[in-house]
Amino acid sequence: MKKYIRRDFLKTASIAAVGAGALSLTGCETKTDNSPAKNNGKTYEWKMVTTWPPHFPILGEYADALGKWVGEMSDGRLKIQVYGGGELVPALEVFDAVSQGVAEMGHGAAYYWAGKLPSAQFFGCVPFGMNAQQVNAWLFFGGGLDLWRELYSDHDLMPFPCGNTGGQMGGWFNKEINSIKDFVGLKMRIPGLGGKVITKTGATSILAPGGELYTDLDRGVIDALEWVGPYHDSLMGFDKIAKYYYYPGWQEPGSVLELIVNKNAYNQLPDDLKNIIEVAAAKVNVLMLSAFEEKNTEYYLKMKKESKIQFRQFSDEILEALRKYTGEVIDEIISTNAMAKKVYDSYSSFKKNIYEWDSIAERNYKA
Amino acid sequence: MKKYIRRDFLKTASIAAVGAGALSLTGCETKTDNSPAKNNGKTYEWKMVTTWPPHFPILGEYADALGKWVGEMSDGRLKIQVYGGGELVPALEVFDAVSQGVAEMGHGAAYYWAGKLPSAQFFGCVPFGMNAQQVNAWLFFGGGLDLWRELYSDHDLMPFPCGNTGGQMGGWFNKEINSIKDFVGLKMRIPGLGGKVITKTGATSILAPGGELYTDLDRGVIDALEWVGPYHDSLMGFDKIAKYYYYPGWQEPGSVLELIVNKNAYNQLPDDLKNIIEVAAAKVNVLMLSAFEEKNTEYYLKMKKESKIQFRQFSDEILEALRKYTGEVIDEIISTNAMAKKVYDSYSSFKKNIYEWDSIAERNYKA
Repeated sequence: MKKYIRRDFLKTASIAAVGAGALSLTGCETKTDNSPAKNNGKTYEWKMVTTWPPHFPILGEYADALGKWVGEMSDGRLKIQVYGGGELVPALEVFDAVSQGVAEMGHGAAYYWAGKLPSAQFFGCVPFGMNAQQVNAWLFFGGGLDLWRELYSDHDLMPFPCGNTGGQMGGWFNKEINSIKDFVGLKMRIPGLGGKVITKTGATSILAPGGELYTDLDRGVIDALEWVGPYHDSLMGFDKIAKYYYYPGWQEPGSVLELIVNKNAYNQLPDDLKNIIEVAAAKVNVLMLSAFEEKNTEYYLKMKKESKIQFRQFSDEILEALRKYTGEVIDEIISTNAMAKKVYDSYSSFKKNIYEWDSIAERNYKA
Repeated sequence: MKKYIRRDFLKTASIAAVGAGALSLTGCETKTDNSPAKNNGKTYEWKMVTTWPPHFPILGEYADALGKWVGEMSDGRLKIQVYGGGELVPALEVFDAVSQGVAEMGHGAAYYWAGKLPSAQFFGCVPFGMNAQQVNAWLFFGGGLDLWRELYSDHDLMPFPCGNTGGQMGGWFNKEINSIKDFVGLKMRIPGLGGKVITKTGATSILAPGGELYTDLDRGVIDALEWVGPYHDSLMGFDKIAKYYYYPGWQEPGSVLELIVNKNAYNQLPDDLKNIIEVAAAKVNVLMLSAFEEKNTEYYLKMKKESKIQFRQFSDEILEALRKYTGEVIDEIISTNAMAKKVYDSYSSFKKNIYEWDSIAERNYKA
């Protein structure tokens, strides 16, 4: 039976194919002109610096894995030594270190470079922005990656999408947040664009040292914080001291991780090694998201079963207010930076369109 | 400001990392013992047979791309000649052809082999099953891929997840479907598990030749059909003749494509080429889904703007009835096949858990 159907599919499909323009599959392939085309027998020893502590759960582990996979695929011709943040250069100097050729590669997230490049954060995470599946579609087929490469080109860097956290959580609170007014006076650890957004509610975005977060929350030095999701948050022990765990993670709906490669180093590689790097980054893209989903599921269920945490959902009224403030924060950024405007215009127009499709295809589907 | 936050993150993260068990990243790596470990300088010329017409939009194009990428990464040491369905072997003989070594590789979907292996369809698509993001988490980190390899091992095949269609549409109808009773007597082209499900509603699952679908629907020989999503359906011209386009695509919420490799051929490869194949499949995994999302968005918007098609949503009552019948269809399969039961138990238990996480993280998030 299936056999008939399939044969039929093929007949029809042949017809269909006639009408279809060939799809560009090259969304993430970039070649340079001056590179040796062929395997030249040379062995390359590269350094990869990262913004993560060595072997940090999932994020650092996949930086390690990328190095391992490139080594395996190249049969040892491209050896990558991976350094945790602070081991070779400080975590927040990864961009400069790779740009200057101190290391050939880096793994981190584009929003860490927002101080230098305001538009970079749109390649990392955007509050009320696209989720992992949607942002990949934008990067690979909506012009996102081209803009990213345009932005980094002046810094002698080639970026590759290289992982995604999936949806995160909205954070830990010791009091219920029943209205947007409950943010007034709240001292919350929340970095980046999300921090700027809650400042507009009347809350204070606190820069408490991470190593002190547990103690600070426990002693009431801060009232609230957001970290990542159930897996990483549980490793930090927040479920042992906070009362309420809020969702959804409006501030980080699908944060993109990046691989950056020094352009001069990249251009010296033969084509096969260039391709190996790019394809390894794509493998991290799919596997890291899968790992986040699996671990967050496991730890969310564990937390529900074993802890006294009360889960709470931000009301629509609260989310609408946060969304409005997010618009204001983004407007402030793009009104003073032409490249940021160009990137955000592309991002937001793609988002608007894909949400129309999402609203019928995924939104209305429940398994 | 960002700088401080990030440094703090690192301090805390170091603490967090202590508590974390190392994550297994090896979800899709499989080594065999008798393979040459090192690049032996040999060149391999392989054939890849596929279930798609040559260069079929997205699906066939990514089979071509996989061959190209493997060739590039291996610097020509592993050359893959890609054949469309019927060019070397008929589309539905891909499994047997690769199993018997007629070709070294195949690209298609596991549910095509349901006649031979009832459990295979759970690796392809499951009505009311997991979406692309969730099914990847199951395959790579929930034991799914291990079971898939166990199942195919007896057939001398090694499967790799190699693409996903994302959410599809529910199909084309010439009358409104306002209740489950409106399926009674309906002649609908819908293959696979979905076809078995609608048979239980009193509809007839029709096996009309694909090449005749357009004419059959136009002339009323069939009353309804489902194909893929806005992109592929538009190429077929269904928007020119049908009245209603229903969603969501309950019957195919995220169909997995597969790469199959003949085990004997695979075992003769040195490790670097094995790794290259596996990582190329992962690249197809992420890029194909992105391509489907982008193209379906584009064609959905075009259809909304330019055609007279009326979009309709299946009611909750209809979906609940279809879900109940899906349960019956699956029960019939797993009650007579131990391996199918083993696979579905793993699938459904993972699905139950990840839906709990999904229900707070993604479900409540609107950009």
